[in-house]
Amino acid sequence: MNELTINLQSKSNIPLYEQIYSYIKNDIQSGRIQSGEKLPSTRSLSRYLEVSRSTVELAYEQLLSEGYVESEPYRGFFVAQIEELYQLKQSPKRIPGGSVREEKRYSYDFTPNGVDLNSFPYNAWRKLSRDCLMDDRAEMFRLGEPQGEYGLREAICDYLHQARGVNCQPEQIIVGAGNDYLLMLLTTVIGHEHKVALENPTYKQAYRLFKNLSYEVCTVDMDSRGMDITKLTESNADIAFVMPSHQYPLGIVMPIKRRLALLKWANEQEGRYIIEDDYDSEFRYKGKPIPALQGYDSCDKVIYMGTFSKSIAPAIRMSYMVLPKSLLVLYQEKSSFLNSTVSKVDQLILQKFIEEGYYERHLNKTRALYKSRHDTLLGCLKSLQDRCVISGENAGVHLLLHFHNHMAEDELTARAAQKGVRVYGLTEYYIEPQVGKQATILLGYANMNEEKIQEAVRILDEAWK
Amino acid sequence: MNELTINLQSKSNIPLYEQIYSYIKNDIQSGRIQSGEKLPSTRSLSRYLEVSRSTVELAYEQLLSEGYVESEPYRGFFVAQIEELYQLKQSPKRIPGGSVREEKRYSYDFTPNGVDLNSFPYNAWRKLSRDCLMDDRAEMFRLGEPQGEYGLREAICDYLHQARGVNCQPEQIIVGAGNDYLLMLLTTVIGHEHKVALENPTYKQAYRLFKNLSYEVCTVDMDSRGMDITKLTESNADIAFVMPSHQYPLGIVMPIKRRLALLKWANEQEGRYIIEDDYDSEFRYKGKPIPALQGYDSCDKVIYMGTFSKSIAPAIRMSYMVLPKSLLVLYQEKSSFLNSTVSKVDQLILQKFIEEGYYERHLNKTRALYKSRHDTLLGCLKSLQDRCVISGENAGVHLLLHFHNHMAEDELTARAAQKGVRVYGLTEYYIEPQVGKQATILLGYANMNEEKIQEAVRILDEAWK
Repeated sequence: MNELTINLQSKSNIPLYEQIYSYIKNDIQSGRIQSGEKLPSTRSLSRYLEVSRSTVELAYEQLLSEGYVESEPYRGFFVAQIEELYQLKQSPKRIPGGSVREEKRYSYDFTPNGVDLNSFPYNAWRKLSRDCLMDDRAEMFRLGEPQGEYGLREAICDYLHQARGVNCQPEQIIVGAGNDYLLMLLTTVIGHEHKVALENPTYKQAYRLFKNLSYEVCTVDMDSRGMDITKLTESNADIAFVMPSHQYPLGIVMPIKRRLALLKWANEQEGRYIIEDDYDSEFRYKGKPIPALQGYDSCDKVIYMGTFSKSIAPAIRMSYMVLPKSLLVLYQEKSSFLNSTVSKVDQLILQKFIEEGYYERHLNKTRALYKSRHDTLLGCLKSLQDRCVISGENAGVHLLLHFHNHMAEDELTARAAQKGVRVYGLTEYYIEPQVGKQATILLGYANMNEEKIQEAVRILDEAWK
Repeated sequence: MNELTINLQSKSNIPLYEQIYSYIKNDIQSGRIQSGEKLPSTRSLSRYLEVSRSTVELAYEQLLSEGYVESEPYRGFFVAQIEELYQLKQSPKRIPGGSVREEKRYSYDFTPNGVDLNSFPYNAWRKLSRDCLMDDRAEMFRLGEPQGEYGLREAICDYLHQARGVNCQPEQIIVGAGNDYLLMLLTTVIGHEHKVALENPTYKQAYRLFKNLSYEVCTVDMDSRGMDITKLTESNADIAFVMPSHQYPLGIVMPIKRRLALLKWANEQEGRYIIEDDYDSEFRYKGKPIPALQGYDSCDKVIYMGTFSKSIAPAIRMSYMVLPKSLLVLYQEKSSFLNSTVSKVDQLILQKFIEEGYYERHLNKTRALYKSRHDTLLGCLKSLQDRCVISGENAGVHLLLHFHNHMAEDELTARAAQKGVRVYGLTEYYIEPQVGKQATILLGYANMNEEKIQEAVRILDEAWK
């Protein structure tokens, strides 16, 4: 083959070399030029097409580097042998607009996972964000420390010590993009030879994650003080995932005696650990916060996890994990090559947010806000006293109603839904289905103002008559 | 016990109820008050201490909620039975200042992982960041889509289609905080029953990660066209991790024939997949970019991964993964409950950065910058022609020198280090040690300006004489 009749568009936006390249590539892909065939020399093709020789050379080089043609010294360019034809299909037209989430519309939603975002200090966050991007520019975009920036870890360490009684050094803290990620990271440290026990009911996300990561998982029943230690021992699990300061969803505070029994369990055998998920202990409306279990641990057995999702905002993807010293050594050996999952700018914003006192003010403000919603809700719920008993009050952002009017959970949620109020049944938090349990409804109040709470409880009172 | 002599400090910052609570707690912890002992009634203690009864009640409630005391109806408060005494120790004083990284000082560093951060468009990024925090405030801090915001996925999809020939829908894209995280996420989708084959030499991070996640891992040797498919088949692996557009560290572009053979391999057996790590294909200095392998895949076998760490900045923790449709179904079933690891604000900034053309301009600017450094380095290296052959040029941000002067790699790096120039031996990229391989040095040029390149090569020329 000495000539290729290519209809070049000299006025096109596409460079001439690319037109030549595309034409030949298409011909090879479609089989119009057979493998083994010799391409015209760059000199003859450039003369034939009336373009410069370097234009043709560029086209040939591109074909060469993608492997469509091969060059043989002193002989020229030959079409490569391509076993099968794969076509690059045009991607089909997309449905315009964003993804559609179907969701039933409710006028009132007592979600237990709400966060009040109106009280978020946007101006402070924006100011800090601007400051961080002003100074130390290149440094902000260089790869950071795998465990998170040291300054942020110091700020978290001080906060944990003062507010949660957590006993650690910044060296033990790992900052990561959410609890899910940190649990994944933890599995690379502790390996897969473990059996994990979770409370029943529990935070289902953690249960599913361990399952997905191919762990042996089980649940252990709770009594009024938290996870039953005898049953934990019987389960043969060696990792206990617990929420001692405010169990989700039951709202139980694990008393000191049970905490010590749990620590004793962990200490009885090598390789046993406790994962303490301290997800919302910032919110307590009576007395001082309950100190973290980690603070009582003198045997290096507690892996402490905390998050800013509840206390600042869910879209701030920042959580942290405090490793006991023995696991820290393992982490450094096995997993410290993994890069941080949080951008340096975000870490610095958060560090300043804590250091300059914004976090404390924000916590106090939201605590006061949630307390007044909590109090309003408790006040309104007096009208339901004849049908249910309340538990889980004084902490967190939800409480529970235990019904004794023989209505089933399904019926309670359905009747509320009919009138536009979304409430949540406890059943969905159980891993194994519970037979004959009392109907229990969760009411979250973080995301409802007092007027809405009053209106919604009035509707529930009607619906549940 | 009817009286507790507590020395209350009425002028202290610590509230009175907390002083009472701490005193009793300490006495219980130290054993001064025995378990089973009855506390004075709130009425008698308040009279004795001359404080209001509600102050004592608050202290008792705190002790009750932490489990130090128990309440018996009509009888009063009794000290709980606590099996062992654990003391909350004061955290030892920390060493002030940040963590110290020891690193030998070099005047010149040819790191192959460099990124030029001076050309980063700080002002644009800051402006976009400000804009994002201005509008839609509460929405920005609400929990986002697990796969990443749809708008960002659309922007990435369009970019991938145009620039990389990747054939996908935004629904197939998952945005995540770095490649390491996305690989972890992928393992929750595909499960652990796989054997992963990586190129040898390869990107060691991926090898270590699969190892850590308890996968069976092996390496497959490469020839001048990439991974050897016969050896891949013999390895019994069912997942091939490859970098077809610009192999790291060898810089090989996998020709179309090998690509089709690899796709054929994947299609021969159910459960086989190819992970295409397309980490730096933005940088090509001659002709058009090499299209991604994913674009040739008509059998739903390629998992495509890309990152903004190389093309924007390492500290921007944003990568993405394009799942074939069959795996997307699995992801939705098994892993879509996992929350996104990237903050919504950062996602929106990046979306606008792409949509408003900043990304394209930034890419063109850095490509031109790296090209001129690449050209300068190639020019300077002519002085070493008598000792080595160059490969891996025209793409990426590093090239390779293969020595035929019988100097060992160790000697080459050591001699350079002695004169303050840091260069990198190929050996450290091999998983299994290679015997009798030619000494090969990597020179990265992204982070060195032209003057420094000239000076450094002059020093290397001397050092390697």
